[in-house]
Formats: sequence, structure tokens, C-alpha cells
Amino acid sequence: MFRNFSIVPKIMFGRGSFSQLSDIIAPRRCTPDSYFVFVIDDVFQGKALESRLPLQGRDLLLAVNVDDEPKTSYIDALVLKIKDYSSVKPDGIVGIGGGATLDIAKAVSLMLNNPGSSADYQGWDLIENPSVYHVAVPTLAGTGAEISRTAILTGPEKKLGINSDHTLFHQIVLDPELLDGVPKDQWFYTGMDCYIHDVESLQGTFINEFSRSYGEKSLELCRQVFLDDHPDKDDKLMMASYFGGMSIAYSQVGACHALSYGLSYVLGIHHGIGCCIAFDCLEEIYPDGVQEFRRMMDKHRITLPKNLTATMDADSLDLMVTTALNLVPLWENCLGPDWRKQMPRERCRDLFLRM
Amino acid sequence: MFRNFSIVPKIMFGRGSFSQLSDIIAPRRCTPDSYFVFVIDDVFQGKALESRLPLQGRDLLLAVNVDDEPKTSYIDALVLKIKDYSSVKPDGIVGIGGGATLDIAKAVSLMLNNPGSSADYQGWDLIENPSVYHVAVPTLAGTGAEISRTAILTGPEKKLGINSDHTLFHQIVLDPELLDGVPKDQWFYTGMDCYIHDVESLQGTFINEFSRSYGEKSLELCRQVFLDDHPDKDDKLMMASYFGGMSIAYSQVGACHALSYGLSYVLGIHHGIGCCIAFDCLEEIYPDGVQEFRRMMDKHRITLPKNLTATMDADSLDLMVTTALNLVPLWENCLGPDWRKQMPRERCRDLFLRM
Repeated sequence: MFRNFSIVPKIMFGRGSFSQLSDIIAPRRCTPDSYFVFVIDDVFQGKALESRLPLQGRDLLLAVNVDDEPKTSYIDALVLKIKDYSSVKPDGIVGIGGGATLDIAKAVSLMLNNPGSSADYQGWDLIENPSVYHVAVPTLAGTGAEISRTAILTGPEKKLGINSDHTLFHQIVLDPELLDGVPKDQWFYTGMDCYIHDVESLQGTFINEFSRSYGEKSLELCRQVFLDDHPDKDDKLMMASYFGGMSIAYSQVGACHALSYGLSYVLGIHHGIGCCIAFDCLEEIYPDGVQEFRRMMDKHRITLPKNLTATMDADSLDLMVTTALNLVPLWENCLGPDWRKQMPRERCRDLFLRM
Repeated sequence: MFRNFSIVPKIMFGRGSFSQLSDIIAPRRCTPDSYFVFVIDDVFQGKALESRLPLQGRDLLLAVNVDDEPKTSYIDALVLKIKDYSSVKPDGIVGIGGGATLDIAKAVSLMLNNPGSSADYQGWDLIENPSVYHVAVPTLAGTGAEISRTAILTGPEKKLGINSDHTLFHQIVLDPELLDGVPKDQWFYTGMDCYIHDVESLQGTFINEFSRSYGEKSLELCRQVFLDDHPDKDDKLMMASYFGGMSIAYSQVGACHALSYGLSYVLGIHHGIGCCIAFDCLEEIYPDGVQEFRRMMDKHRITLPKNLTATMDADSLDLMVTTALNLVPLWENCLGPDWRKQMPRERCRDLFLRM
């Protein structure tokens, strides 16, 4: 059985295209007394980008904090805030920021049309009602959040995405100018999320020619960005992220992402840096990828934190292992159907102990 | 101003995925007394593929002839045939074949919901009403018809597409197995349409990083297919076609396509071979591309017809020049805003005289 793969149906690409956001959403301003919600990373408060938002009428600016990765409780609180703001549903949501902010925008637009808590929908295809119209404007590139069918949330019981075709954005605006001014570390870690997607997809057992074409090109773009220092590197990183997202959407990520979920869930480590920490310990699974990744780290003088697990108690370590190993499709893609034999709890534990 | 680019929102890829067509369209069978129309190239009549069509109930099998490229009068007649068949509109149209058949499926699904003749809509964004749901199943790869927002038709006055976001398919099914058994010449000419798209897009003035990423990867896939004889060449050609289509959709084709329209309109030459004939005379504009193209021809022992224009009267030649030069965006992409200086009628005429 082949999967019928859904794709974000509208895309605008170009340096300065953010200026057309107002025109893009104008036809969606169709309900009397309704409004748009602009979900924006609070690092932009008081910055130039905030003043460029095409707010009008009753539009709501919702500055969100992503110092911690998005929690289901935070999503539920934001949805409540919008419902308190107006009894009319918004005509649309625009998410502006990195992967965490985009995931918040996705989750909020789903939860405005689906009852209960966002934690009820962590999993695969549990969403019943289509979301509110939602638009992505990434200001970081690498996670592929702009193109993925998941909104990754940390819930009371697990870190797991709301995976659904309804999660997909209706529109993305890729303006490479918005990458300007990203702190170097964040730029690198987020970009490496993309590089790692590509390696995990290309080396995975789920690979097909669709995923391979996207993954190979994404990898090449990552090299131009992180090794060649290409003059168009911002444009290229935006496309690498999009292509990397397309590649894993029709295949799957692998061991590194599974381990990084454990790091995030138990230690609260952000996804991008978590992926880097995990990947650096996975030479036995991704030998070529890890070596090239280290060359990229050297070039950009990135130093990863070490000994994160050294002083950890056994229960926490155990929870980390359980979190990672629960991500069955990731391990199946990485190691094939008999992955449990190849990745027993002890081996997974050993991998975490190296971090 | 950047264009807001529409993409086919659902895609299934894989060897054998054609078997899932029935499941894919099932949720669209929603109107009582309605039916699906299967628009299929008549070369498949009595062949295995015909017997695999998921026909049920009142479904209509519409075998179409593409010995000539699709004419607006043919589209109008097919639409009438469907209206005669039932007063109820079909729930969907499935096009199964090469670029010409897919363009027929697109045009028919548009014209079921828009009044008048298909000739009224040749141009850009003249379609007012959304089309009937329509699905592409390519059995040839290269034209990019599965992904493009145009349905190219020969009308009483011109060869020009119905260009509209509504022209886009709602779903594509890419099953590389269906490329089996394509006659070698047709396989080559259609594949070269893709190769030429890539060269025209990459060397054009409209290029951006979105189009470049798709175009470069498509070109690489074409090399694997036509120079390296890769074992997965059918899968790769399907992806090359899709990527090539994505590349030109956000940029534009160029001189070769403009000239090939002249050849088709006046001499009735099919698009794929017409592109090859024109490209072979364009070394002065695309030197590297034409040289590599000739290596591909040599490898596959392809011989192009020659002296097509030698015995042509002046009026026909003139009409060919006019047809080609009317395609303003193609020349703008190829030669920049001052293209008229660089490509006066005499130079265009000289190019045709070499064919």
C-alpha cells in the first residue's frame, strides 16, 4: 500500500515576498466581524518584523514564547485566549517564526475546530475536523515545519506530534530575507535538523525515488550552505528545509530523531541542538553523515554540550529510553522490521550515556 | 511582485500504485446518479491497462485519439458527449496517458463547469469557475503535464494553453510501472521535453532558487536516465518530469518551446519531437545543453527529421515566426526584457530555416 501524500497547495518564494502577505490573506478575510491571528515568536516583539505585520481591523497579535518547546497545555491556553477574545472564529492564523512557533500556529488552528485538549490528538490521524485556514512564514530554516503534516507537542504523557493532513498549512511564504539576524548557533542547529532529515531519509528502509530526489537535492543544498558558504546561502537553506521536509514526509526520519525526542522530553533540550547531540553519537549507524556533520561543526566552530546524562538517575534514563523506543516507525525506517533485535534497551541506553 | 504558486495537493508515488486508483477516487464518488469519466489514450484500447481501470456503475470510458495534438474543437465535442451521456455532471475525471491525454482531461474538467468553447479560454487566467475534480495518471514522463497549470490546445487562431490555477489536477498517481512498453522514440522525445524544460528554466532570466533546486535535480535525473542507463530509470524519469514541471511552473520555458509551438501550429508536429528539432538548432543560445542533448541522441540512436522547412511557402513560414514570437513570456525569460532586439523576425526565420 502506497500513501497518498498531501502537500501544502500554495507557495510563494522570494526575497521580500513577506511584503505580499497582506495580499495573500486578503481573499480569506471573508467572515463579517472576523479577524486574523498573527502567532509570532516573542523575540520579534518591538523588532522591525513586528511593525511589518499586515494587521487590520480586529486582528489579534499573539506573541508566543518558545523558550521551552510547545506544550499541549500552552496550546490549550492559547486557544482559550482566542475564544475569550471573540465569540467569532478567526478567518485565519498566520504563524511567523521557527519550527516551534509554526507548530503552535498549526496546533491552534486545528484546536479551534476540534473539541477537547490538544493532548487528545497526539498521534496519527486522530483529528476529525479540518483546521482554520493557516499560513506559515518561517524565519528559521531547517525543521521542515512549513511543509510537514505534524505539530510536535510535549504533552503530559509524551512528546509526540498531531499528525494529520489537516495539520498541513494552506499556504507558505518563503522569504529568505527573514533569515537575516538569526543567532549563529540557532542557525546551525536548525540547519542541521534538515541535514539529519536528509541522511535519515536517504539511508532509511522506507526510501523511494520521490523521497530520494528531494533528500539528495536537500543534502547538496546543505553542503552549499554549511561547507561552501555560498553567496545565496539563505535562499538555499530555505529550499533545503522545504526539500528535506518533502523527503521525510514520504519516508520517515530515523534513529537520531528518536533519540532526540528522549533528550527533549526528559531534559527539555530543544529539538535542533538535541538532534545534533544525538547525531554526534551515531557514527555506528550513519558513518558518512556523522563525519560530514563534524566537518560542518568544525567550520562553524560549534561546540556541543557534553556529559548530559552522566549524573542522571536510572529512572530518568529509563524514561528517555522508553520515549525514544516508542517511536516505532522511526526505528523501522532506520533498521528495518527486526529493529527491536538490533536496538535493545541496553544499546539505546548506551547511546544516551555517550551524550 | 512574486507569484503565489499553486501545487497539485495530493500525490501518490510507487511501482504498482495504479492499483490503488479505485481507493483514491472512492471518497469523491459522492453525488447520487453521478459517475467518473476515464479519459484514456486509445492506444490502450484492448490492452491490459484498460482492463485494470476501476470502472463501476455508470462510469464512462472515453478513449481519446491523440494522433494529432488536442484541438479546442475536439475538447468541445468531448464535453458535449459527456453532457449527452448524462444530465448529471461527473463526480470526477481521470486522465490516463501522455501529455496530450492529460491536457484533454484537464480541459474537459474545466469546460464542464465553464460556458462557451474551450477556445475562449486560451490564455492566462480566463477561467472563472473551478473545474470538476480531476486526476492524472501519466503513462509517459517528461512533459510535466501532471503538474502544470496549463492545458495546451490548438485553437482556430493559435496554439496556446488554458493557463489557470483551476487547470491543475487535484491528484496525481505516479506509477513508474506504467512507463513499460512505451515505444523508444516516444520515450526519448517526451523525456527530452523535460531535459529542455530544465535547460530553459536554469538558463532563463526568471530563475529563482525554488526553480533552480527543482531544475538542477531534474537535469541530474535526466542524465541518470538518458546517459547512465540507471536501473531505476523509470522511477527517475517520473521524478525528473515532476521536478522539471515544478521548475518551469515557477519560472518559464524559453526559445526552444517558443519555436516548437510554431512547428506544431503550422506543421502539426508533436510537441516532444518538435522540441527536439528546435533544440538541435539552438546551439547559439543553449551551447552546453545542446551538446549534451546530442550525446543523448547518439547514445539512443535517435535521428531527427531534417529539411522540414525547405519547401515551405513564405506565408507558412511567416505564420510560424508569428506563432513563435507571440509567446512573449518565453522570450523574456530566455533573452531578457530587450528580447525583441535580440530576436528580430529575420533571426527567428533563419532558425526555422535550419530545421
